[in-house]
Amino acid sequence: MIVYDKLTPKELLIYAKPSSEVKYISDDENEIDILREYALKVNLVVRLKNGDPYVFGRGGKVCYELFKYGIECEVVPGVSSVNSVPAYAGIPLTYQGISDMITIVSGVTKGGRLFDFQRIPKSGTLVLLMAGKRIGEISKCLMNRRNPSEDVAIIERGTYYDQKVIVTKLKDLYNINVSSSPSMIVLGDVVKLRNFLWKLS
Amino acid sequence: MIVYDKLTPKELLIYAKPSSEVKYISDDENEIDILREYALKVNLVVRLKNGDPYVFGRGGKVCYELFKYGIECEVVPGVSSVNSVPAYAGIPLTYQGISDMITIVSGVTKGGRLFDFQRIPKSGTLVLLMAGKRIGEISKCLMNRRNPSEDVAIIERGTYYDQKVIVTKLKDLYNINVSSSPSMIVLGDVVKLRNFLWKLS
Repeated sequence: MIVYDKLTPKELLIYAKPSSEVKYISDDENEIDILREYALKVNLVVRLKNGDPYVFGRGGKVCYELFKYGIECEVVPGVSSVNSVPAYAGIPLTYQGISDMITIVSGVTKGGRLFDFQRIPKSGTLVLLMAGKRIGEISKCLMNRRNPSEDVAIIERGTYYDQKVIVTKLKDLYNINVSSSPSMIVLGDVVKLRNFLWKLS
Repeated sequence: MIVYDKLTPKELLIYAKPSSEVKYISDDENEIDILREYALKVNLVVRLKNGDPYVFGRGGKVCYELFKYGIECEVVPGVSSVNSVPAYAGIPLTYQGISDMITIVSGVTKGGRLFDFQRIPKSGTLVLLMAGKRIGEISKCLMNRRNPSEDVAIIERGTYYDQKVIVTKLKDLYNINVSSSPSMIVLGDVVKLRNFLWKLS
């Protein structure tokens, strides 16, 4: 049984074996209860997840709860947006002589609070998830910790056909209107490399 | 033309189309020169890379040099070890209430110097690459920055059939003998979750 949700790219479901059952799960349903119920019924349940469920996702929680019920889970890692979105946009997260450290945070936490940006390193590459809607407040916090003249990229709908990338300086970030989701912000000198690593045409 | 090296899993090459040519490149050869030469000869050159070439790899440098010659490169992101190795070992890099920040560094830099661990955040998850051979020195540096009673996992040959995971406290890390490569170290409270998220059997 293959369980998917509204974020699952439908194109993936065509790879399902004819012998498998495909089930949609809505936001209103309790994912853990449903997976548990299915796990007791069928041989193998595949939970297809968009994004990286172990990087600011619910993956850990879901597995933890299922294990408590004695249901074994195995994670099959996929292509994580944290690495792939900057790479595809021409931004390597590290580069010799330019950046030797990567920090990844979520701009807004589950309860709606902003991340405490005093905790991030003063140098290196910063990957910022879930920051699009509160970019004004977040850019102010970042300016208190990082150099306002650092380059920053806002990647909207990374790797999709309608990907949009805006490059600016940290001091001008508050001005940017992030109109589509998902979006990702990359801060640091590696952003400059996009000029040399993005497609010529 | 498909270009691979000694780190490429040979199993991948069976997916090469019969019409494609497969070329081995050794450590002694100049990768950029060879890729440039092939790019001028054939329609499309695929450089198969192990690991994540944009995370402490040479990917950025190789693309940069090729673009300078007017050769367009497109990155096709794959499954990065930074995310997949901890996930497969039962360690989510973030978990609500336990860790909300990920930092990734290389323990040893290209020139053989140790990373300056005073630059890393005092909290959150730390992923440490290329640390196996100098674990004694590195654990001393980490103890000056992080809580010695924090949990730490040493993952050797992550996701391979002979994967080996050791969990200990930071204060005891210096004692560990890392015998095989590649290895990865994960430091932080998320390591505790392995007890609940790794396979039951």
